[in-house]
Amino acid sequence: MKLNEIADLLKGNFTGNGELEISGIASLENAQNGEISFLENIKFLEQVRKTNASCIIVPKDFKEIINQSFIKVENPKLAFAKVAEILYPTKKRQAEIHKSAIIAENAIIGNDVFIGAFCCVGENSEIGEGTQLRAGAKVGENVKLGKNCIIDPNVFIEDNCEIGNEVILHAGVVIGTDGFGYVRDSENNKHIKFPQIGKVIIEDNVEIGANSCVDRGALGETRIGEGSKIDNQVQVAHNVSIGKRVIIAAQTGISGSVTIEDDCVIAGQVGFADHTTIKKGAVIGAKSAVFPGKIVRKGYWSGIPVMPMDEYKKLNAYIKSLPRLFKEFKKLKEALKEKK
Amino acid sequence: MKLNEIADLLKGNFTGNGELEISGIASLENAQNGEISFLENIKFLEQVRKTNASCIIVPKDFKEIINQSFIKVENPKLAFAKVAEILYPTKKRQAEIHKSAIIAENAIIGNDVFIGAFCCVGENSEIGEGTQLRAGAKVGENVKLGKNCIIDPNVFIEDNCEIGNEVILHAGVVIGTDGFGYVRDSENNKHIKFPQIGKVIIEDNVEIGANSCVDRGALGETRIGEGSKIDNQVQVAHNVSIGKRVIIAAQTGISGSVTIEDDCVIAGQVGFADHTTIKKGAVIGAKSAVFPGKIVRKGYWSGIPVMPMDEYKKLNAYIKSLPRLFKEFKKLKEALKEKK
Amino acid sequence: MKLNEIADLLKGNFTGNGELEISGIASLENAQNGEISFLENIKFLEQVRKTNASCIIVPKDFKEIINQSFIKVENPKLAFAKVAEILYPTKKRQAEIHKSAIIAENAIIGNDVFIGAFCCVGENSEIGEGTQLRAGAKVGENVKLGKNCIIDPNVFIEDNCEIGNEVILHAGVVIGTDGFGYVRDSENNKHIKFPQIGKVIIEDNVEIGANSCVDRGALGETRIGEGSKIDNQVQVAHNVSIGKRVIIAAQTGISGSVTIEDDCVIAGQVGFADHTTIKKGAVIGAKSAVFPGKIVRKGYWSGIPVMPMDEYKKLNAYIKSLPRLFKEFKKLKEALKEKK
Repeated sequence: MKLNEIADLLKGNFTGNGELEISGIASLENAQNGEISFLENIKFLEQVRKTNASCIIVPKDFKEIINQSFIKVENPKLAFAKVAEILYPTKKRQAEIHKSAIIAENAIIGNDVFIGAFCCVGENSEIGEGTQLRAGAKVGENVKLGKNCIIDPNVFIEDNCEIGNEVILHAGVVIGTDGFGYVRDSENNKHIKFPQIGKVIIEDNVEIGANSCVDRGALGETRIGEGSKIDNQVQVAHNVSIGKRVIIAAQTGISGSVTIEDDCVIAGQVGFADHTTIKKGAVIGAKSAVFPGKIVRKGYWSGIPVMPMDEYKKLNAYIKSLPRLFKEFKKLKEALKEKK
Repeated sequence: MKLNEIADLLKGNFTGNGELEISGIASLENAQNGEISFLENIKFLEQVRKTNASCIIVPKDFKEIINQSFIKVENPKLAFAKVAEILYPTKKRQAEIHKSAIIAENAIIGNDVFIGAFCCVGENSEIGEGTQLRAGAKVGENVKLGKNCIIDPNVFIEDNCEIGNEVILHAGVVIGTDGFGYVRDSENNKHIKFPQIGKVIIEDNVEIGANSCVDRGALGETRIGEGSKIDNQVQVAHNVSIGKRVIIAAQTGISGSVTIEDDCVIAGQVGFADHTTIKKGAVIGAKSAVFPGKIVRKGYWSGIPVMPMDEYKKLNAYIKSLPRLFKEFKKLKEALKEKK
Repeated sequence: MKLNEIADLLKGNFTGNGELEISGIASLENAQNGEISFLENIKFLEQVRKTNASCIIVPKDFKEIINQSFIKVENPKLAFAKVAEILYPTKKRQAEIHKSAIIAENAIIGNDVFIGAFCCVGENSEIGEGTQLRAGAKVGENVKLGKNCIIDPNVFIEDNCEIGNEVILHAGVVIGTDGFGYVRDSENNKHIKFPQIGKVIIEDNVEIGANSCVDRGALGETRIGEGSKIDNQVQVAHNVSIGKRVIIAAQTGISGSVTIEDDCVIAGQVGFADHTTIKKGAVIGAKSAVFPGKIVRKGYWSGIPVMPMDEYKKLNAYIKSLPRLFKEFKKLKEALKEKK
């Protein structure tokens, strides 16, 4: 790709040799001749001086004179990601149904579908056009899988689940197993399984990280909204409703019937008690806990239990000062005693 | 199933049209004509007014006059679960050994066993009557797997483990891999593996959630007692002993040689340090930590480290009041200074 | 193995019958006649009295007169592990490529390699001499896998990753999936994937527990250093650098671009914010959190956020004393009021 094509794509303000051929992307630190890189923020300017990159995508307020070509844009990181999308397109495996795959006779397989070795597709399931099922991925019965999805090795999608278009499920993801619900039967001292007969609906453009799990609804559905992105080893329990464009980092656990509305950002290792609600646009810090009954409003939150981030920071500072407080209190008491 | 059959099954007090055919179960909110639902608690009465369910299982103290049929029982949720067990029985796959499965010649396969595509059963292993190994499940050597188990896709059971009857292992579960134990060899500055040659014993009626792991004993055994239920992404380390009817929610981690006695209830994301003991009937709140050396008695516990729930709540309230305390303390000091 | 052979191996001080044949290892509690056991510390001496072991490995300061043979060594646990290595060598599966395995034509398979049922090896990949790929393990394209590795069932290694020699990856491990990185595109209100085109490098002698995940570098690499040991369900994000001989216990989560230097020990359920640095030899307690921007020096650390262990313990004691402080403060205020 030539530099002036890239500059056009980014609608950026270009300075340099537009005929230069760009062969790859890299960080400023590791870039080689012929590669493009980006400067996220003017304060890391030092890295620009040492880079071997042939072109740098820079922020609007970039004013240096440098030897390399550069493109000024509003958001260099975003621009860089867009270039990467073109130079490193998602691997498109050629249409094929591997001879070892076991596909139910009445399954509907779209055009241009790739189904790798040791895959299974159950009865009445549907695999949309352009979707790739990589080696060992298993799709149950009555599953609807949309177009251009990438289903990585050893993913399992249980019966009756619905997956939208352009969904990426990374290796080891489990969609649609039973939720965790029991009723104690005191007569025979046993836990009786509460019915787990609902399903999972994953909307378009969702990405779910390796070894994450999404349980089916007990009676209704578990839903992950359009454009939401979930990291590795996340647990989504039955009847959870996740809105659109929600970001959830690794190892977070979401209990049954939690609602997380659109555009929330959830850091790693957070825990949500069941039936809690996170309102549109809330941001929750790592390792926080949302306790039962809580409704979390828009804003920044952290702590066990969660509180507004400001309050959390202040409280932490107070806690850090406890040794001093205890000491001063002791001194004060002694001083008063002496006075008596 | 006719309503008077259901009423008989539940030994409930029935009012309505016993000849009505019930085709399914649903929540009060989503129920359609022909479906049965339940009212867990009289305080959600409002939902009864709007439901389209044809029959409602209600608590004993229900006194309303409604158009629908209803059945009065002691525990409506339990009764509902029992109806669900009959209307939605666990899927029974027809006896079959898929042609792609690799079964050791000397493995013993019981009657009525289902073994799906791409399964493996190793030497000297035994699969009990009526058990289902779903696609891609792998059973090592010398494994004893009981009757009527459901082993979901991509489960792996390592050599020498013993699994009881009616056990459910959800997708991605790993049973019997090496525990995590090393001894530092200062001579060559290496971690030498401590032997991990024990096994895992899972008793009857246990259910383990997707992607959970149970390590084999280092020298002895790791055991999960009868009727215990474990959620997704739980880690059970070597030589752990879990009693009967224990409930463990998602993402909890149990270190080596921990003992959790019968009837404990452990919430999600809890951590147990090694060699700790949780006495019969203890209940531990989410995200708690049981620190080394701790013995947790019966009762409700929470916190990092765990303390009795009452104490935990009180302590949290005090912590929340720290800003006020610091302020008042400062005021008091100043007032005293002025007095001088 | 005869006892005097074992004594020679351990260079220990031997007392007893050197001709005795030892058939196995066990804990003092469970050992049978013919087995060898060890006494870790002189304070558990009581167990020696009751054991049926035929020989006991004991510490240097052992002075009892017992019926059994015994071997005095510096570090009995280490010595025991060394005996175990010989009596229970790692299972060496005979060289075989299972007929069901799918191996790319141009893959290079070393001598003495075992490839089990339903395995895949992609184009241009290389499997080193003596390595075992167990049933269902999947290796992508351009992967370099060293000598004498054990890759357990259902492991997935993504394209372009490099694995050293003597590496053990337990069941369900996922190496090299995309890291979790997006850039918000405000124009169309979407999360655009930041490129995840780097790789994972795992050095010699690393062991990674079941269902753990290691993401590929975004642009550069994610690296796990020689001799490091990682437990089950650990998450290692993109561009993390883990040094040599690092120990990481279960369910710990390591965010992007974290550096953990040589010889660190990380307990379970710890969380690391991105770009944090853990200096050589630091030890971090269970369930701790390393907050953004933090550099953790050598020493013992714990808490959310982490602080030196001493400070953490002191602070916890102060927190526990809060109810008393509040009460005393109230009393003091009242006393002062009355005085007025």
